[in-house]
Amino acid sequence: MDPRRALRYARSGRKKFVSELEEFLRFPSVSSEPERAADVRKCAQWLAGHLRKIGLDRVSLIPTRRHPIVYASWLRARGRPTLIIYGHYDVVPADPLREWSTPPFTPTLKGGDLHARGAADDKGQLFCHVKALESYLKTERILPVNVKCIFEGEEEIGSPHLTSFIERNRTALHADAAVISDTRMLAPDRPAISYAQRGGLRAEVVVKGPPHELHSGNFGGAVLNPLQALSEMIARLHGDHGQVAIPGFYDDVRRWGREEREFMAGSGPTDEQILRDANVESGWGEAGFSLYERTTIRPALTLNGMAGGHQGHGSKSIIPARAIAKLSFRLVPNQDPHKIAESFRNYIAEIAPPEVRCSIRTFSEIKPAVVDRDHPAVRAAAFAFQQGFGSRPVFLRSGGSIPVAATFQETLGIPAVLMGFGLPDDHIHGPNEKFHLPNFYKAIATSIFYLAAAAKLRGERRVQGQKIWGTA
Amino acid sequence: MDPRRALRYARSGRKKFVSELEEFLRFPSVSSEPERAADVRKCAQWLAGHLRKIGLDRVSLIPTRRHPIVYASWLRARGRPTLIIYGHYDVVPADPLREWSTPPFTPTLKGGDLHARGAADDKGQLFCHVKALESYLKTERILPVNVKCIFEGEEEIGSPHLTSFIERNRTALHADAAVISDTRMLAPDRPAISYAQRGGLRAEVVVKGPPHELHSGNFGGAVLNPLQALSEMIARLHGDHGQVAIPGFYDDVRRWGREEREFMAGSGPTDEQILRDANVESGWGEAGFSLYERTTIRPALTLNGMAGGHQGHGSKSIIPARAIAKLSFRLVPNQDPHKIAESFRNYIAEIAPPEVRCSIRTFSEIKPAVVDRDHPAVRAAAFAFQQGFGSRPVFLRSGGSIPVAATFQETLGIPAVLMGFGLPDDHIHGPNEKFHLPNFYKAIATSIFYLAAAAKLRGERRVQGQKIWGTA
Repeated sequence: MDPRRALRYARSGRKKFVSELEEFLRFPSVSSEPERAADVRKCAQWLAGHLRKIGLDRVSLIPTRRHPIVYASWLRARGRPTLIIYGHYDVVPADPLREWSTPPFTPTLKGGDLHARGAADDKGQLFCHVKALESYLKTERILPVNVKCIFEGEEEIGSPHLTSFIERNRTALHADAAVISDTRMLAPDRPAISYAQRGGLRAEVVVKGPPHELHSGNFGGAVLNPLQALSEMIARLHGDHGQVAIPGFYDDVRRWGREEREFMAGSGPTDEQILRDANVESGWGEAGFSLYERTTIRPALTLNGMAGGHQGHGSKSIIPARAIAKLSFRLVPNQDPHKIAESFRNYIAEIAPPEVRCSIRTFSEIKPAVVDRDHPAVRAAAFAFQQGFGSRPVFLRSGGSIPVAATFQETLGIPAVLMGFGLPDDHIHGPNEKFHLPNFYKAIATSIFYLAAAAKLRGERRVQGQKIWGTA
Repeated sequence: MDPRRALRYARSGRKKFVSELEEFLRFPSVSSEPERAADVRKCAQWLAGHLRKIGLDRVSLIPTRRHPIVYASWLRARGRPTLIIYGHYDVVPADPLREWSTPPFTPTLKGGDLHARGAADDKGQLFCHVKALESYLKTERILPVNVKCIFEGEEEIGSPHLTSFIERNRTALHADAAVISDTRMLAPDRPAISYAQRGGLRAEVVVKGPPHELHSGNFGGAVLNPLQALSEMIARLHGDHGQVAIPGFYDDVRRWGREEREFMAGSGPTDEQILRDANVESGWGEAGFSLYERTTIRPALTLNGMAGGHQGHGSKSIIPARAIAKLSFRLVPNQDPHKIAESFRNYIAEIAPPEVRCSIRTFSEIKPAVVDRDHPAVRAAAFAFQQGFGSRPVFLRSGGSIPVAATFQETLGIPAVLMGFGLPDDHIHGPNEKFHLPNFYKAIATSIFYLAAAAKLRGERRVQGQKIWGTA
């Protein structure tokens, strides 16, 4: 199908699209906060209504035990390939609020950027495909391919119900490829296709000492402080050279050959660029690897948060009763999240001092994944990027984890094509998150081109049922 | 003066006294929380009104830059000794609130105990002396000695303005001894006189990494996490055997001889008792010292609180931007708080990794103090305890710090007699703080006996101007 009419529609509709995206961003759809559940639901209802309005069929809110999946399809292109479009409408919390220069749920235009929580991760990126679909439906009245949209509300809490949804609906979700836009480009003029994501694993460690806080004058020096004990345990999670100190942690880590590392060095960001993106002066971590390698082909363990004792104004002379640490692993091929969880629990149990009680919880296991850069569905994406952004995309590994990617592969046997429209300085998950509007417009065009290119997918190669990408 | 009429008054007034104490405890006079300043003031006004009502003279609220000192005197006993009575009406915060079984500022009777924040530390103990004064004034119309009451509102924030108040009023505050009831007994039938307190020093360490939180997927493994860095620094504050690892920390610590250590072993709590009081199964700390020694003649460093990164519901995939630790030292003769502060700052600066920025603040320096167990003012207190509680008091060292004790010694040249009426399981500074009412009644009687006994102080020995106790 010739995409020209759709492209014209998209170009003339920019102002309307931005104002619709602002509506979408106004919902504080924070999936991790129970008190926001109603807001998450309202956001899902708004999105479902919007999908109906642009002309998709079978729009529905599929309930889970927590936040609904917004599903929609358009299956009137008989005999043509079917594309799954995945995105998530939930966001991470906006705290620390005082570090935002504009309110996180009041979308604000600043220069060419739209500032709001979720602007880039992932409402803005998801919306590019929605607007591309609208552009065809409002001009051609049909789409070049069949489409099944799965817009999740639980991605930021580890997609606890998505796998079972996909497994239960394996037949109904039959498709030829899935497209996911939840990654980033290297720069506004350097589009990227993410061909690898790190896996993940989350953990919480709670250390309990005395049943109540104790006066540190009366007992300081005679009773082990659970917060001190936790700090000392955390200190033993990394070695002196940035490596994770859990025994056996690196046993299954795949060592990549010279060819792949050279490809990465030629295509990926330099150390300088990563430092600039992070806004820090110096890097840190495992010796012998570039910063890009450290965040993609090497695993990492991050302390996301820690709390214990007095945290309010002034001082309080106490030995705390408990302390908590929240951690997350990023894993790489061929690490098995389940095996890593076990090693972690064993190691913590081993280093916990006998004077305190320690409980360990591991959850949100995600397998690492890699897709073949030469797969036709990936090549179609590269073509679409070239048309939409005017430059050939680079092939990048991503440091983050996209739980659904592994699920599409394992359960549906289809490749997940990761077309990222975010930028490295979008501050996703941090204060002042933004989406670069020129990317929004070019991404809509890219999606329009991709839908057209995907129509030829089946002719090239029948992917359904084949294991076309692996976790290693 | 014969104390019998005062004692009878005190015995028959018990019910009234408890209900007055409950009024006193209802004020949430939390000195460390700026939003409680008005409550602290209301509490001071209530106390001043009460002192006027019982018949004290020159009752006034002496303003400081934060919370007022409640001052009152009775100086009509010409030619008789003068006693300073010191106490504090401010309290520490009540959090964590959910761990209280009754509301902290709604005094609640349970068995023989009165539960409320401040019940033992220090409103209840201060009130014992107030009721003893009332018992004389309402029966004899005079007191056995001259009295100057200094009731502070800033003890729990390190008495920042008390020293300058005492220094400025050195002449007006001329006295023969000071009595302070802000310590504890060994058990309900084992009264105690605290003859030593540890000094103190507080510190805050803030570690800053990237200017904003970073996504731990994108940057995990390549950017040093300030919370991890802080944990690793905290882990280096103690050695493997419970000792503080700051270089030079023990250089000035006085080693006590066999005689004093044997006296302590015979008079102080056993390891078992300290563990029972703390409600923990096993002790911790420096090898070669009993738990009592570890908390009195040995210094300690306690991590009072720590915070960084995500602390709310669920998980958040971030590298935090900053982390903070709140610490307090307990110091012993002959450690100099100022010198220790310098060693601490130097050590932290030395161990801070170069990839993060670290700022260190030290404050609230308090000198350690010891008083001669044979001083007449101390012997008078021992006599009063024997009369009031029916048993000879034990002489104990206290692990806590009483800033004013060192000030009375250094500025006024008088001994501070520490008559504690609290119990080890009073949960001071923790949830469910309480005051054992039989102690309240016996302490009032003890104070009545002490006021009578103090009348003979001058005849025995003229203490004013002499340096009768030292910091070593």
